[in-house]
Amino acid sequence: MVLPKFYVDDIIKTALKEDINYIDTTTDLMIPEESWSAATFIAKAEGVLCGIEVAIRVFTLLDDSVKFTLYKKDGDRISFGDKIADIEGPTRELLKGERTALNLLQHMSGIATKTNQCVQIVKGTRAAITDTRKTMPGLRALQKYAVTVGGGKNHRFNLSDGAMLKDNHIDAAGGITAAVKAIRSRLGHMVRLEVETRNLDEVREAIEAGADIIMLDNMNCEQMKEAVQLANGRALMEASGGITEENLREVAETGVDIISLGALTHSVKALDISMKIISKISK
Amino acid sequence: MVLPKFYVDDIIKTALKEDINYIDTTTDLMIPEESWSAATFIAKAEGVLCGIEVAIRVFTLLDDSVKFTLYKKDGDRISFGDKIADIEGPTRELLKGERTALNLLQHMSGIATKTNQCVQIVKGTRAAITDTRKTMPGLRALQKYAVTVGGGKNHRFNLSDGAMLKDNHIDAAGGITAAVKAIRSRLGHMVRLEVETRNLDEVREAIEAGADIIMLDNMNCEQMKEAVQLANGRALMEASGGITEENLREVAETGVDIISLGALTHSVKALDISMKIISKISK
Amino acid sequence: MVLPKFYVDDIIKTALKEDINYIDTTTDLMIPEESWSAATFIAKAEGVLCGIEVAIRVFTLLDDSVKFTLYKKDGDRISFGDKIADIEGPTRELLKGERTALNLLQHMSGIATKTNQCVQIVKGTRAAITDTRKTMPGLRALQKYAVTVGGGKNHRFNLSDGAMLKDNHIDAAGGITAAVKAIRSRLGHMVRLEVETRNLDEVREAIEAGADIIMLDNMNCEQMKEAVQLANGRALMEASGGITEENLREVAETGVDIISLGALTHSVKALDISMKIISKISK
Amino acid sequence: MVLPKFYVDDIIKTALKEDINYIDTTTDLMIPEESWSAATFIAKAEGVLCGIEVAIRVFTLLDDSVKFTLYKKDGDRISFGDKIADIEGPTRELLKGERTALNLLQHMSGIATKTNQCVQIVKGTRAAITDTRKTMPGLRALQKYAVTVGGGKNHRFNLSDGAMLKDNHIDAAGGITAAVKAIRSRLGHMVRLEVETRNLDEVREAIEAGADIIMLDNMNCEQMKEAVQLANGRALMEASGGITEENLREVAETGVDIISLGALTHSVKALDISMKIISKISK
Amino acid sequence: MVLPKFYVDDIIKTALKEDINYIDTTTDLMIPEESWSAATFIAKAEGVLCGIEVAIRVFTLLDDSVKFTLYKKDGDRISFGDKIADIEGPTRELLKGERTALNLLQHMSGIATKTNQCVQIVKGTRAAITDTRKTMPGLRALQKYAVTVGGGKNHRFNLSDGAMLKDNHIDAAGGITAAVKAIRSRLGHMVRLEVETRNLDEVREAIEAGADIIMLDNMNCEQMKEAVQLANGRALMEASGGITEENLREVAETGVDIISLGALTHSVKALDISMKIISKISK
Amino acid sequence: MVLPKFYVDDIIKTALKEDINYIDTTTDLMIPEESWSAATFIAKAEGVLCGIEVAIRVFTLLDDSVKFTLYKKDGDRISFGDKIADIEGPTRELLKGERTALNLLQHMSGIATKTNQCVQIVKGTRAAITDTRKTMPGLRALQKYAVTVGGGKNHRFNLSDGAMLKDNHIDAAGGITAAVKAIRSRLGHMVRLEVETRNLDEVREAIEAGADIIMLDNMNCEQMKEAVQLANGRALMEASGGITEENLREVAETGVDIISLGALTHSVKALDISMKIISKISK
Repeated sequence: MVLPKFYVDDIIKTALKEDINYIDTTTDLMIPEESWSAATFIAKAEGVLCGIEVAIRVFTLLDDSVKFTLYKKDGDRISFGDKIADIEGPTRELLKGERTALNLLQHMSGIATKTNQCVQIVKGTRAAITDTRKTMPGLRALQKYAVTVGGGKNHRFNLSDGAMLKDNHIDAAGGITAAVKAIRSRLGHMVRLEVETRNLDEVREAIEAGADIIMLDNMNCEQMKEAVQLANGRALMEASGGITEENLREVAETGVDIISLGALTHSVKALDISMKIISKISK
Repeated sequence: MVLPKFYVDDIIKTALKEDINYIDTTTDLMIPEESWSAATFIAKAEGVLCGIEVAIRVFTLLDDSVKFTLYKKDGDRISFGDKIADIEGPTRELLKGERTALNLLQHMSGIATKTNQCVQIVKGTRAAITDTRKTMPGLRALQKYAVTVGGGKNHRFNLSDGAMLKDNHIDAAGGITAAVKAIRSRLGHMVRLEVETRNLDEVREAIEAGADIIMLDNMNCEQMKEAVQLANGRALMEASGGITEENLREVAETGVDIISLGALTHSVKALDISMKIISKISK
Repeated sequence: MVLPKFYVDDIIKTALKEDINYIDTTTDLMIPEESWSAATFIAKAEGVLCGIEVAIRVFTLLDDSVKFTLYKKDGDRISFGDKIADIEGPTRELLKGERTALNLLQHMSGIATKTNQCVQIVKGTRAAITDTRKTMPGLRALQKYAVTVGGGKNHRFNLSDGAMLKDNHIDAAGGITAAVKAIRSRLGHMVRLEVETRNLDEVREAIEAGADIIMLDNMNCEQMKEAVQLANGRALMEASGGITEENLREVAETGVDIISLGALTHSVKALDISMKIISKISK
Repeated sequence: MVLPKFYVDDIIKTALKEDINYIDTTTDLMIPEESWSAATFIAKAEGVLCGIEVAIRVFTLLDDSVKFTLYKKDGDRISFGDKIADIEGPTRELLKGERTALNLLQHMSGIATKTNQCVQIVKGTRAAITDTRKTMPGLRALQKYAVTVGGGKNHRFNLSDGAMLKDNHIDAAGGITAAVKAIRSRLGHMVRLEVETRNLDEVREAIEAGADIIMLDNMNCEQMKEAVQLANGRALMEASGGITEENLREVAETGVDIISLGALTHSVKALDISMKIISKISK
Repeated sequence: MVLPKFYVDDIIKTALKEDINYIDTTTDLMIPEESWSAATFIAKAEGVLCGIEVAIRVFTLLDDSVKFTLYKKDGDRISFGDKIADIEGPTRELLKGERTALNLLQHMSGIATKTNQCVQIVKGTRAAITDTRKTMPGLRALQKYAVTVGGGKNHRFNLSDGAMLKDNHIDAAGGITAAVKAIRSRLGHMVRLEVETRNLDEVREAIEAGADIIMLDNMNCEQMKEAVQLANGRALMEASGGITEENLREVAETGVDIISLGALTHSVKALDISMKIISKISK
Repeated sequence: MVLPKFYVDDIIKTALKEDINYIDTTTDLMIPEESWSAATFIAKAEGVLCGIEVAIRVFTLLDDSVKFTLYKKDGDRISFGDKIADIEGPTRELLKGERTALNLLQHMSGIATKTNQCVQIVKGTRAAITDTRKTMPGLRALQKYAVTVGGGKNHRFNLSDGAMLKDNHIDAAGGITAAVKAIRSRLGHMVRLEVETRNLDEVREAIEAGADIIMLDNMNCEQMKEAVQLANGRALMEASGGITEENLREVAETGVDIISLGALTHSVKALDISMKIISKISK
């Protein structure tokens, strides 16, 4: 698993505490402790799988006697009916972990699937699809990982690790040129600088000032094309705002380098995956 | 705020640590510490507001000198252009909290809005709209609260506080009648018992066995109507599985008491709300 | 173990940090790292065992080379001199975990024992013995589990998962009938409703209003008998307040369905169990 | 408050999360947000008050608009009917905090009361009453504080801050004299050394070896008297094991310096204190 | 304060719990609760102040009635005898917070002072002084902040936010050119790429491959000069390894852009600052 | 490992979260998941090893398939070039853990080394070398452990477990004699009492009053010699303040029992140890 285990474990424990609280009333009263079951994860929709190791970890964390076999791995395309993984373990633990495992798996696969759809749409252009900081509290790492599994790239992870001059920063400095100059002299050498622009004059000024990346905020495709020509390779151009699956190809064809999409992580549609549990008589 | 403050605070701190990490490179280098600003939250789409106190709390937690005025409260309908709240405080803190506040506010309002659309659709029938346990790890309380703000009701909060007999539990006991009898004798008196059924024979057996609520799992409307007639008020009837906004009215008209919808919380579309920050010369 | 492992682990880690702080000065200075010992848990009093898996977990958490054999399990009756379990492991870890393991085991067994005494007293009546929310901060899950091990049932786990109308709620609504009506229309379908009453008029009103359970608060046995007759099966009747082991049988014979006892968890007498450690020369 | 605020706050937050989970269903549905109430803490039994600041903190932590007046403080004797404190605040928060506040207050007062009874019994002798490490997980600080409020003293707080040679340590070193010599040469200068003894020969050897304190483990009063004479002031003598309120005075009169009682913290009887909430029409 | 308050608060609470554990035995037994004192922070050595707001926060977190006046702020030069700040509050809290406040203040000022010495040494050259990831567990944010207060810049904050190809990565790809090409096609657009080199051939290859920054690992000044000439502005050049205050100026004069120094944070000499507490009779 | 595992694990997880955040961009993009490597820890300077088990634990916590062989253990002297340990595991995890492991190992070995130098200097005198409470937030246990590994002893661990009368406490009581008397009657029997003195009159008074230990604060060697003679074995004498490696021997020769040195933990020089990773083709 690329994500650090203790990082994933903390999210899973939080989820399990929330979902189980203190017992699974139904299961603990009805299923004998020694009951043993097998279960299968099956795709109920088409998409890109993401989070299968996280989902399996839910069960091995509940009980380390749980065994599993993976038929698909993160990044694989799955279709309706595809078998994703088999697991086997105490029936009680399979039932207790089921909802948490599926909540994580369906959410992460939903992000990877949607990202991949966008990546397919822009295929053949120079545009990369990236996420934003519009993520769910506590789940940013899982969500950003899912974007990469879907073929996208990550924008900055947080406010410490990338600089982005927005209107408030620019106004405080008295203009783009002054702002870029001021921040350049203070920024660490590992930090890239992006400038948010709203029109071609600002684009021009940002290029001259030496921005690494220029965000074209809510511009139309005509403007973006001109901006790309203005830049002529001197800075990376990022399209942002008002972009949907409908106009995504058109935006990509303006020649921008990056298209960032908040919806990848703020408006996720879960991918339907089921877990079927079959009780077995003996271990 | 209905949600306990320390509960909300923990989620906000997690989100802020994730989003800020250690500094806001751009803001801390560019905005003077003494700079003071005002900001306004404005609706960019139509829906039901939810989470405004949570969003404001992001800022008062960052700096207790932040002041605010609310024009709308949780549960209010908002339309494009509506002013929701004004806040005022150190520019640095407004910029640092902006993304976290909007992520929470847009997500919670998205849930309330979608729930309310469903509530409107079933208006005039006896059906209540409820959520499920298909929630985001760590955010169940916020999500379940948003469902109630949208006019929905909450299903069980976790596996401890409601009993639900599913096929694995029923198989282990040797049938619905045996399962209901067995669990009834062990359950606490504050816990309701729901039984999952897949056909009318199971519905009939569950009613006779004395279930409080019967889940009609993935049945068609014909079956549900028959089930309602079978029950004749002896148990609450819950429709679940395969329900979309398209067939929701039809399902409600079968006479079921409860319609539970996983999509309310597992496939949320953020409601567009913006925060415009305007720097001011002096306090 | 019915209780989730990570839940129990957190309590044990808190206890160990509190008890060890940073080293066991005496043990770390006096016992060689390679020293290996066996230990036996022995009952020093008669009662119902509870928490043996939690106690053993203290040691496997300190060192995963610790081995154990259980002779008794949770719920078993134990008498003076009974061997409960053997463990074997590094002497240092056995000494460091001893106090924490015994504190948990004696406390949980104390609750199970006391609960079981009450269950025996009411045997043959319809009354179930239940706990309350009068628990020790941070230990509610362990305590409620111990009550079930002793043969009791759990009252609501927290304020979210059961509704209980007390005088302040009733006054706010303008009476029992109004209060029941108001809350019924808003409650989730998985939540039972209990009404607290202080006299027979209130009992009558609560039954008519349709409460699921009626708490008879601090009533005498005459009143409780009348209340049970009034209810005649239309609601569950719960006796609460002023009940001791002395009058418990008499209360149970009034025909109430539930007797809740705060003392089960707020005034626990630890059950005496010892752990004898014997150093061994070699592994 | 002597106990550090952030320490107490953590315990209270844990307790509130456990007790409220996510909402107080009854209160949040029935009590208007603007409702304001007063409440009074009243003693329902005789004893020594402890934890009143902790109990009040439950409410100020839930809502910082809560106001209070204290009539009694920790350490004061209280009798049936005594008014302890008045508080005033939002009705919702008073109802949500009630159980957590009382659980803490009754438990801490129970410990202080029991300790004080023991202190009264030994009055006039040289014996001090102390606690042990037989405490509830996560609550040791609160419990040890309550012992001091009742007039007792604290034994070592944890395994790091005091050295106690028990039989396993002594056996490993080859006897008391060797063990004391070995540990003395390695112990920090701020750490006192106690030796556990089971008969007068061991007492004699421990005194000669230079122990600071000698624990007389489960000895009868005759033996203890002899031990005290043997020591003749060269070491502090601690009586431990098998001591009840019945034989406590007799033990004290043997001349021992310290009597440690596990029951002070492992078998606490809550002191009955009530909180009566009265709704008010306006602030 | 630039550092987020809740971030700093968590570090302070950890420190206070470690230092106080449960009471300040001496202070709680000897100083009356109502005693009030003033205290002054005074420089006992020459250096650059850092962490004064963090130090003051120790006290306001212990008791919000604490008042303070700052005479110096982070980044100010201080000399022996300089008054830095006055605080006033309950004597008990001043005594309890003293050690934690000084530990943080002296450590942070030690880093700022050492950084500033290095910055002064390279004055007039193009070289910036930066930190590394050689920091103390849990204190990276405080330490990196102190480096900036001393006039240095931050290297990457963690492994997520900057890419650095070391020999293991380069070997896995089959050489520098292949490695740079491979990672460039996958890296997010906000992430800078640094390549570690050990000789001039590697420098040449890294420049040609298009690295943003080139680390000159343990090279001598002759080699560094040549490397700078080779680069000729096409990449930033970072000197690293074996640099001390003795050879720092010579390294800076090779023309490198960045000099990174692990010792700034891994071998800190605390700056001597005292806190003198004077008891006052009344508030 | 003497330090409790879960204690060390928490520090390591904090460090890893800080250092990795969410991925190791470089490693995760460049090193195949199945790549396997060996690594060797090698001393690059002379000193006393400390923390090798902690360093190894970084890797087994990241991945439990990591294997290791130790050639040196805590407390061993190491010289330039000495092989300390070999480890073997997934290349990715070795690279991700490297910095955290070295940061801990170099810091702890730095403390043990410096402590041992001081211990060597005072060899042959009666003086023991001890630490102080001048430690790094969150790392006190690791640091105090390192002092003992270097041959030093620990002063009190925190404010709860040892009493130290300083000027503020003494002034509040009206003098040393009054202060000692007052605190003695209230202190637990396991707590030693130290008194801080600034001149010989105070030393005399403290001895007469019955202090266990007397701190000679910033006295010169003449004064300390006189103080030792005054005490004549009636109390332990501790030298503190203004002691450096230069005057340490002279101080020890005054006959004091304890010399406490803040610099052991507040001004640590990391000991140079490297970790060389060599990729291997197959497992």
